[in-house]
Amino acid sequence: MKLNENMKIKDNELLINDVEVKNIKKKYDTPTLIIDADNFKKKIDVFKNNFRSDDLDLRVIYASKALNIKRLLEIVSDKDIYLDVVSLGEMYTAKKAKFDFSKIYFHGNNKLIEELEYALDNNIGTIVIDNETEYELLKDLVKNRKQKVLLRVNPGIDAHTHEYIKTSKNDSKFGLSIFDDSTMDLIKRINENENFEFRGFHAHIGSQIFEKNSFFDELDEMLKFIKKVEEQSVKIIELNLGGGFGVYYTKEDHPFELDVFLKEFKDKIEKRIVDEKLNINTIAIEPGRSLINDSGYMLYTIGAVKSTYSGKKYIFIDGGMSDNIRPSLYDAKYEMAIANKMNDSFDQEYDVAGKLCESGDKIGKNIKLPKAKRGDLLIVNNAGAYTYSMANNYNKMRKPAVVFIEDKKDKIAVKRQSLENLTECEI
Amino acid sequence: MKLNENMKIKDNELLINDVEVKNIKKKYDTPTLIIDADNFKKKIDVFKNNFRSDDLDLRVIYASKALNIKRLLEIVSDKDIYLDVVSLGEMYTAKKAKFDFSKIYFHGNNKLIEELEYALDNNIGTIVIDNETEYELLKDLVKNRKQKVLLRVNPGIDAHTHEYIKTSKNDSKFGLSIFDDSTMDLIKRINENENFEFRGFHAHIGSQIFEKNSFFDELDEMLKFIKKVEEQSVKIIELNLGGGFGVYYTKEDHPFELDVFLKEFKDKIEKRIVDEKLNINTIAIEPGRSLINDSGYMLYTIGAVKSTYSGKKYIFIDGGMSDNIRPSLYDAKYEMAIANKMNDSFDQEYDVAGKLCESGDKIGKNIKLPKAKRGDLLIVNNAGAYTYSMANNYNKMRKPAVVFIEDKKDKIAVKRQSLENLTECEI
Repeated sequence: MKLNENMKIKDNELLINDVEVKNIKKKYDTPTLIIDADNFKKKIDVFKNNFRSDDLDLRVIYASKALNIKRLLEIVSDKDIYLDVVSLGEMYTAKKAKFDFSKIYFHGNNKLIEELEYALDNNIGTIVIDNETEYELLKDLVKNRKQKVLLRVNPGIDAHTHEYIKTSKNDSKFGLSIFDDSTMDLIKRINENENFEFRGFHAHIGSQIFEKNSFFDELDEMLKFIKKVEEQSVKIIELNLGGGFGVYYTKEDHPFELDVFLKEFKDKIEKRIVDEKLNINTIAIEPGRSLINDSGYMLYTIGAVKSTYSGKKYIFIDGGMSDNIRPSLYDAKYEMAIANKMNDSFDQEYDVAGKLCESGDKIGKNIKLPKAKRGDLLIVNNAGAYTYSMANNYNKMRKPAVVFIEDKKDKIAVKRQSLENLTECEI
Repeated sequence: MKLNENMKIKDNELLINDVEVKNIKKKYDTPTLIIDADNFKKKIDVFKNNFRSDDLDLRVIYASKALNIKRLLEIVSDKDIYLDVVSLGEMYTAKKAKFDFSKIYFHGNNKLIEELEYALDNNIGTIVIDNETEYELLKDLVKNRKQKVLLRVNPGIDAHTHEYIKTSKNDSKFGLSIFDDSTMDLIKRINENENFEFRGFHAHIGSQIFEKNSFFDELDEMLKFIKKVEEQSVKIIELNLGGGFGVYYTKEDHPFELDVFLKEFKDKIEKRIVDEKLNINTIAIEPGRSLINDSGYMLYTIGAVKSTYSGKKYIFIDGGMSDNIRPSLYDAKYEMAIANKMNDSFDQEYDVAGKLCESGDKIGKNIKLPKAKRGDLLIVNNAGAYTYSMANNYNKMRKPAVVFIEDKKDKIAVKRQSLENLTECEI
């Protein structure tokens, strides 16, 4: 396992941001998601300090679907960046965190009326309209105000990991194609509606993207499109380029240096806007995974070690696909270690299986680890994004606790679910 | 969509067990899981009435991980069949349903101490030991009693859908291989421990199995193994053959007739036990999906219909991978209809996408349906198993309501989660 900067080893034990992992086990039990909030704050600073401009309003928006919990949103609020929400539940949590709603962007391909009403009632900053039906809905709800809106469009770039394609034929469920004439018609209608402040566009080209050029090309395509739109007498002042900045999970991943990329991106943005003589004054990006993932660690206790007749060796943990479904869902890979055997030789190979009654419940295959035994603590590195946020109660498992490390001290952020929680909605 | 026996069409509207689906929408909103409890009861009877014997104790055990909610377990209890649980949460729910714990089997590859203690404190009927570590744990916990136990073994048959392989090399995380000498050693140790009543074995060969011979061969292999075990002076009186009986989701699935299969299975079991002069007096099977799946229907409201530039047509629903992750997780397929357009021609083809902020959030691809519009009700057929039980709060979506139809009347069984539920564990 590659150690992160915030990790230390002392007497063969792992410390995260100076907190002994074995003490997390003692105080909060397992499975537990550990969030190094100090690291998260630093990560926000990397975005804020490098994606800034004297001439433009460059915005960093935290895509909270990666991990949306109150304490985290409070930090995002303190750090004075923007927030992306995708549901009533995420807005509700933002409200509990006393997040300034004027700094929230509301996304989604099928926003419900109750969600739009909640957003409007709370004076949400920006609603990102996905399609014509949504515009029709929203225009009947917006009264006596200038609601800021963007339109989600599809620039025909589809990028994942190292590759991307440029195509007008993107079949995503999100947004409207920039190649479609009806998109321009809708833009004009929104722009003419006096209850709206039509500011511009949102685009998002994929996730876990390791190739900077994907983003540079996205910028180019979007600016070209915006030029076309402005020729139709629609003034565009904001462009939201989405997220998708790749992160390190295993040696297979080669992310670019964020600070270098962000500065480069900023330079290109400034230059292109001047060159093209555009009206844009606001450019936003929406990191989710790249902000939170490397601040999160899943901690489990090993219950048994087992060899099959054919020689495969298993480690059984006290969680599994109920707290991290990504290995089952996306074949996602992680680096792991035994937190109390950090200096031991990683000379064994295990499949790491959860305790759920399903053959596919494994969080790792062929993982190199020190020789394990019952009671050892398994740590899964870089697991902050899309783990707890996708947690479920399959097998009537309880969702894990979430423990924050802030100012080098651990404190509980989300309690482990109780048995009572499991049946509280049952009649 | 193939109509189930409990479905009727009246004035172009779908009725399930005489309840108008549009009234479910009116009373409980969507997304909602509808459970036809009358159909579930009939299904239990199919198992009970056909898997019975004058000479043997043939047991039907409901594998509740498919859908474990209190009201359903009360029905299982009334119907006087057995229950399979896999976690503390499932036991806790069984207790709330006042389920007779002597009729419960406790499964799992990594049972926690707190789970074993809870099982023992509540005088659970049978614990299915998975491996040696678990035996060691359990023997320290069991005091002053004769705890009934089975050992989970792996008979080297791996069956899924139409195919199966016979192999000694099964690498499943569950159980111990019958080909492994150390398995026999463990059997003897359990059998000699006076705190245990060692009754026999549990095996499970896969899920969605459409080939009867898979089960017949499983029976053969297990009885051969039991004969070998009895030669070592260990008396075996119970064999649990697991579940995996295939069900109909779409035309691609060709399940056998359950009643015919169960009688055939029973005949073979009786004959083989007599032929082989075995001591077995109890044989169990564990249907989960095959008991509950065709009593469950997911109901959604269509929010928008959208065409992409390249011509793909989407229906957007008010739920998605948060209430049914099976299409994303297993590429599972379902038949669907528009509950208020049952007689219209199914002449359109749509991808059915959820409202979650993720491209992969689709519950159906290329689904033939009548022309849809906002406000239509989408019904997903045969969706009782592993839908609600795997529901999650991704995107901070709330888990859906569960409405039962019993004696042809609808009543709420599980309330839709509230916004408060979403953050109740957050500090």
